[in-house]
Amino acid sequence: MAVYTEVSDEALGAFLAEYDIGRMVAFRGIAEGVENSNFSLRTTTGDFILTLYEKRVDPADLPWFLGLMEHLAARGIVCPLPVRGADGAALRLLCGRHAAITTFLPGVWPRRVRQEHCAPVGAALAQLHLAGRDFAPCRENTLGPAGWPGLLERCRARADEVRPGLAEELDAALAEVIADWPQALPRGHIHADLFPDNVFFLDGRLSGLIDFYFAATDLLAYDLAVCLNAWCFEPDMSLNVTKARALLAGYGETRKLDGSECAALPVLCRGAALRFLLTRLFDWLNTPPGALVTRKDPLDYLRRLRFHQAAKDAHAYGL
Amino acid sequence: MAVYTEVSDEALGAFLAEYDIGRMVAFRGIAEGVENSNFSLRTTTGDFILTLYEKRVDPADLPWFLGLMEHLAARGIVCPLPVRGADGAALRLLCGRHAAITTFLPGVWPRRVRQEHCAPVGAALAQLHLAGRDFAPCRENTLGPAGWPGLLERCRARADEVRPGLAEELDAALAEVIADWPQALPRGHIHADLFPDNVFFLDGRLSGLIDFYFAATDLLAYDLAVCLNAWCFEPDMSLNVTKARALLAGYGETRKLDGSECAALPVLCRGAALRFLLTRLFDWLNTPPGALVTRKDPLDYLRRLRFHQAAKDAHAYGL
Repeated sequence: MAVYTEVSDEALGAFLAEYDIGRMVAFRGIAEGVENSNFSLRTTTGDFILTLYEKRVDPADLPWFLGLMEHLAARGIVCPLPVRGADGAALRLLCGRHAAITTFLPGVWPRRVRQEHCAPVGAALAQLHLAGRDFAPCRENTLGPAGWPGLLERCRARADEVRPGLAEELDAALAEVIADWPQALPRGHIHADLFPDNVFFLDGRLSGLIDFYFAATDLLAYDLAVCLNAWCFEPDMSLNVTKARALLAGYGETRKLDGSECAALPVLCRGAALRFLLTRLFDWLNTPPGALVTRKDPLDYLRRLRFHQAAKDAHAYGL
Repeated sequence: MAVYTEVSDEALGAFLAEYDIGRMVAFRGIAEGVENSNFSLRTTTGDFILTLYEKRVDPADLPWFLGLMEHLAARGIVCPLPVRGADGAALRLLCGRHAAITTFLPGVWPRRVRQEHCAPVGAALAQLHLAGRDFAPCRENTLGPAGWPGLLERCRARADEVRPGLAEELDAALAEVIADWPQALPRGHIHADLFPDNVFFLDGRLSGLIDFYFAATDLLAYDLAVCLNAWCFEPDMSLNVTKARALLAGYGETRKLDGSECAALPVLCRGAALRFLLTRLFDWLNTPPGALVTRKDPLDYLRRLRFHQAAKDAHAYGL
């Protein structure tokens, strides 16, 4: 939860003058969101979200993210639509940060995942994958397998502060994942971070997807593995197979997984668990006291990783 | 900035069923606010704020706070109006916390105070003081002078960690303030925390006051001293006399200060500076690593305190 950059009313006024969206009515920081500063912005013409991109986002990637969102929105995916200024630009500077205005999506993200959320999430992910097929630009997944050894390198010396033996366990797990990683699966644009706080529901129906700032071009089924980790584990870190089955079925009704994707699910899940384990571990070791964000326990993902290591095949996920 | 309590959609749905304000459309945590968890809530009938009262607020005080807000709103003060449920109650439980829904106020709080903000703030404070006159219930100011020795007691042992000699300086300053504290000034209900983030402006006009959860019954001119500290110092902690003069003039046009109040301004300002210095010092020493809130530097208020100690009389504030 975070507002990292405070925006003065003068700076905001000058920024809004670049758009044809009316005069400001209200402006509040949004608690959700860890990477960027987000504000709820109301003008005389409607509601918007103002995002200031903070240091973790590479400004060179922003046109790709915004372009993907525009592309997906044009194909019926309910996601934030970048708003262009009078000059046609969706991206400009505000308070020394790159910043964009997007449309406001109604809905509420589920604080507690229920079984009935999972099929719609799977379906929405598959729709996103299909809708992205004709978006030509690609973005390498910097937090994909090629990025994990470097992440572990930066955590290894202090990993055992979090849990004795953790560095050794991660070294072994990572080596196995890299060795087993499938190369020939269908690729496309993936969300890569479709956690519950990025999915809105309204009146019992999925009403929108947000936060495309980890999106990249990678294995489609890896995105599903991220969702299995994010949506289908209980607070005691056991897999809820009913939820997993619903998620996979929801996905499969829109985009059928091929045999190689099904077979790869356990290693993809191990990789997804490692990815979040490593970034959380890095943040855990590097979040200064008094920081604005709550550190998330990396060990939640160690327990998921161990589950996936024990999974023989896709049957473990109810497939 | 804070959301301390996460509200599940089921719990929220059950809570909203107690009100006649339509169905939920959106629900977001608000970054602003340090003491309580605040959410922006949109329903099919409009916009609201949902507040969950966290541990610093005494539940026994909540009816008084909400009653004062209703009273002030009925007398034309633009402040959040508590929304009553179908059962007539404005206060109920949600996720183990006391919670209330209030109306949403348009406007934006000034991230950087300009001179032209100060007269309207003074005027609004005076209007609040007048509007509160016929609200009969009283609430002792637990963070008034009687509370300061206890606060210092809880910080003294570690105060010098923040600055060598701080404990001794605070002991001396507090003893003087208590000895000099005026007893016979006009009393009434005060906001007691009217900082810039609690005052909204829209199109260059003051559009509302929020956050009445430090309000109490105390010396009216003390409230003005809080505002002088909060609105009229520059980032280098020097007093901006032009801002102070504007604040005092804005106040005086609506409620004229009497001679004893003018004469007491320096000691009231010393007291107000001490009050925020002490609570910030306590928070500084007691905010755990990884907490959700940014700690505010207590020494900003030490520098204000020293300014007030050097002030001979109200002329120092441009009066």
